[in-house]
Amino acid sequence: MFETGDIGSTKGWRKKLFIIIFGAETKWGKFFDVLLIVAISLSVLVVMLDSIAAYRLQFGELFKTAEWVFTILFTIEYLIRIVAVKEPRKYIFSFFGIIDFLAIIPTYISILLPGTEYLLAIRVLRILRVFRVLKLVKYLNEAEYISNALIASRRKITVFLFAVIMLAIFAGSLLYVIEGQENGFTSIPTSIYWAIVTLSTVGFGDITPVTTLGKFIAATIMVLGYGIIAVPTGIVSYEMARVKTAPRQCPRCKFDDHDQDAIYCKKCGEALKLE
Amino acid sequence: MFETGDIGSTKGWRKKLFIIIFGAETKWGKFFDVLLIVAISLSVLVVMLDSIAAYRLQFGELFKTAEWVFTILFTIEYLIRIVAVKEPRKYIFSFFGIIDFLAIIPTYISILLPGTEYLLAIRVLRILRVFRVLKLVKYLNEAEYISNALIASRRKITVFLFAVIMLAIFAGSLLYVIEGQENGFTSIPTSIYWAIVTLSTVGFGDITPVTTLGKFIAATIMVLGYGIIAVPTGIVSYEMARVKTAPRQCPRCKFDDHDQDAIYCKKCGEALKLE
Amino acid sequence: MFETGDIGSTKGWRKKLFIIIFGAETKWGKFFDVLLIVAISLSVLVVMLDSIAAYRLQFGELFKTAEWVFTILFTIEYLIRIVAVKEPRKYIFSFFGIIDFLAIIPTYISILLPGTEYLLAIRVLRILRVFRVLKLVKYLNEAEYISNALIASRRKITVFLFAVIMLAIFAGSLLYVIEGQENGFTSIPTSIYWAIVTLSTVGFGDITPVTTLGKFIAATIMVLGYGIIAVPTGIVSYEMARVKTAPRQCPRCKFDDHDQDAIYCKKCGEALKLE
Amino acid sequence: MFETGDIGSTKGWRKKLFIIIFGAETKWGKFFDVLLIVAISLSVLVVMLDSIAAYRLQFGELFKTAEWVFTILFTIEYLIRIVAVKEPRKYIFSFFGIIDFLAIIPTYISILLPGTEYLLAIRVLRILRVFRVLKLVKYLNEAEYISNALIASRRKITVFLFAVIMLAIFAGSLLYVIEGQENGFTSIPTSIYWAIVTLSTVGFGDITPVTTLGKFIAATIMVLGYGIIAVPTGIVSYEMARVKTAPRQCPRCKFDDHDQDAIYCKKCGEALKLE
Repeated sequence: MFETGDIGSTKGWRKKLFIIIFGAETKWGKFFDVLLIVAISLSVLVVMLDSIAAYRLQFGELFKTAEWVFTILFTIEYLIRIVAVKEPRKYIFSFFGIIDFLAIIPTYISILLPGTEYLLAIRVLRILRVFRVLKLVKYLNEAEYISNALIASRRKITVFLFAVIMLAIFAGSLLYVIEGQENGFTSIPTSIYWAIVTLSTVGFGDITPVTTLGKFIAATIMVLGYGIIAVPTGIVSYEMARVKTAPRQCPRCKFDDHDQDAIYCKKCGEALKLE
Repeated sequence: MFETGDIGSTKGWRKKLFIIIFGAETKWGKFFDVLLIVAISLSVLVVMLDSIAAYRLQFGELFKTAEWVFTILFTIEYLIRIVAVKEPRKYIFSFFGIIDFLAIIPTYISILLPGTEYLLAIRVLRILRVFRVLKLVKYLNEAEYISNALIASRRKITVFLFAVIMLAIFAGSLLYVIEGQENGFTSIPTSIYWAIVTLSTVGFGDITPVTTLGKFIAATIMVLGYGIIAVPTGIVSYEMARVKTAPRQCPRCKFDDHDQDAIYCKKCGEALKLE
Repeated sequence: MFETGDIGSTKGWRKKLFIIIFGAETKWGKFFDVLLIVAISLSVLVVMLDSIAAYRLQFGELFKTAEWVFTILFTIEYLIRIVAVKEPRKYIFSFFGIIDFLAIIPTYISILLPGTEYLLAIRVLRILRVFRVLKLVKYLNEAEYISNALIASRRKITVFLFAVIMLAIFAGSLLYVIEGQENGFTSIPTSIYWAIVTLSTVGFGDITPVTTLGKFIAATIMVLGYGIIAVPTGIVSYEMARVKTAPRQCPRCKFDDHDQDAIYCKKCGEALKLE
Repeated sequence: MFETGDIGSTKGWRKKLFIIIFGAETKWGKFFDVLLIVAISLSVLVVMLDSIAAYRLQFGELFKTAEWVFTILFTIEYLIRIVAVKEPRKYIFSFFGIIDFLAIIPTYISILLPGTEYLLAIRVLRILRVFRVLKLVKYLNEAEYISNALIASRRKITVFLFAVIMLAIFAGSLLYVIEGQENGFTSIPTSIYWAIVTLSTVGFGDITPVTTLGKFIAATIMVLGYGIIAVPTGIVSYEMARVKTAPRQCPRCKFDDHDQDAIYCKKCGEALKLE
């Protein structure tokens, strides 16, 4: 999730740009990152406030202007990032590369399709950079630990989700036949939605069984749901106890005991895989 | 769950049929399985679309025809499967044998009892075969692992469910007496349904306590529910840490280190227990 | 939970009665227990059906008669149990002794306080005896295992519940001040009920925050609720991995490897602690 | 959480006061603590009853008087506590020092801002002292154990909460765009509130998706929510298995095998860190 590929820089102005924009080690690199986080936060705030009718009526024009200003700034930043790295393709298709792109595109689309500008809230994901900037090494380690545990259990969780979806399709169809359209189970997809709402113990209550048989089967599904909720928890607990944080290895000298926030290998100076 | 018994084939055309229909090792076996999965998916999609009133009005006849075509195809396939295996009874009463049967019968019943055709959604369970076809060996291992953990904890879970049902009956009766029919607790079975909805933390909100005493007891039940939800999770976590994937053993030479998707023993060629 | 104290019998007719009524080893002992379970089940069924308005109208008199017949039978059984044991007091204040008493008293009270007869549903707890009758030794072991784990974690769970109740009182008061009576938070006790409904993730939706500040604080409570739900699960998982089933020891010869359903020590014949 | 700093007393009347008010070892110390708990409980009860409209109408004046009496008593107690300790600042900014202050201030504020007096319910937190008074050493150990496990997992939980909040912002914005204001998703903050209600499986049902796409995405979020709920549980289970109760060490002689309720080191008489 935090891997952007080894997009290490070469030399000259490009290397300088790279260190400022991608690194957080130098004074300017840090300054740039803090500035960026402030801009992202402000921009997300503007999107949120703009969505509240009362504020939009009063400050609509201001919000619109701010939105365009932020979008243009982020577009420039995006282009500089592409220029600064040695292998632009690796950056563009990395996790943060995609986020950076999605964080500017809705404004442009909103010219054609009004309403999509609210998708700018995706910009909030860019704040994940905060972990690197603030040198929150220990937090990065923990995040890596959790995501390692989740990656280690990805197959178990896939099997589990597959089983849940099958059960939801089956239970949904059953309740569609039993309850019928007059009791809110208007179609099988709607009934499957109900089954997922019930199995996940969310239980909105917008659709509920009315007939005695429907209630009985719903109760059975809920009791089954107990066991179902226990499975992913058991999986994650188990993997968490097993997984260790994977070491980062230097691509040149193979040294692998780096600090979490190191950009270069401290033994041979080779650029390390970022994030 | 994935056991269909040792329904190994004999020889001649029957063996060929067996390898194509039950196996996924040969070119034709794989082709047949992929075709089957496409047919199952399409058939389930038709059932779902047919349940949406707007689509049924427009394409009702088409859906009905498609349903019959799929049912006849699956019926033929079911009969071939019975013919292809050495011991038809073992197949018929195996997990997939029952699913295969339930996947065709609703269409025939719907002639007498309209509405039951939506139960065809059970066909979705046939897609479990996808695991074998796509050679998803590792997923099969994980599925086996999870179901082993669940099987190992079946007695603990039975005891637990027994306790939950008793508590639900008791709590339901109590709230029926306290709240009474005027507050939605119309009968003890309905109140038990409410108790299960509450204990499982689904909480639809279609029935809620109104009196102060009722609210107090409901709150107590919910706090108890914390401990209750913790028990199955604890059980599954514990079993998951203990259970190992059981090896499959060749019935002839007792060799037990087979690939998960092997049909024949790689040491002596004996047919192995399927799935 | 399953302990009734060492209420071992003496000799003569009392011993015979004891073996039939409390034991499930002899033919008559088993017969009596099966009969009892059938009677309990029927009696609970009558209580449930009687609570459904439509059935009460039609069969009300029949239900009332059946209720009295069962109550008188169970009263006689209760008195025989007291006579059959050596130390009646131990039986009366044992888990099953109290259940047996509570299972007959509501009918008598209902003469003075109509409505209480529905509390007869408590009779369902008597079915716990089914474990002994059906020689479900392994299930008994599992039940003992689970209850041992819960007993071992009783202090942790008490501390946890104490913390949850404090948080609920605090959060409830806060939302009462913020939302006020016009938004459904009519009093602090009602608001505490809401806080428990929310913290336990039941979420009926009968009371929901309306103001922006209220929604914000509610969301904070829910996010906290994540951690809170994790605690009892962690506790039970942990204790489950530690606890072992405690052996039953013969009070005379100290031999402690008895079958779960043994009534007498198989080494020296001494009566063992029951259930 | 239970740490108040080493606010050990000096000598003379101040030491006597300290032992009575902060300790629970002497007769008077115990008497004072029991009295305090009774006063706290009564005072919280008054706040609760006062919030019920029917009671306020009838006993409003009485409640108001009682509130002021309790507040004045607690104010005097607070001042004595400050006088009794050697280093008042340490007490004032300790966990219980802040609680003690918050437990009196709302009454004074309510002169200016009516309504805030209900915040007096925070007094309930003062009852945490009950653990010390009742010599519930073992419970204190368990509380310490749980809070140690939570402290050990604080970074993991922070990372997790960060991820949940990001997901909620993203999911909320998405549903705001899809569902729009006419379906209850009136603004992005409201939609984020809905996303948290859904992800935490509370599911009030005050806002629910209406469009097919909205329902589909909501169902996806709920299925994701499974994995999400599993993470904190896994974290806490794991830490619980690792953490040991930290020993208290005497600041002078370094002896560290003290009883949980000891005030002075039993080896050298030095005052230990309290609570």
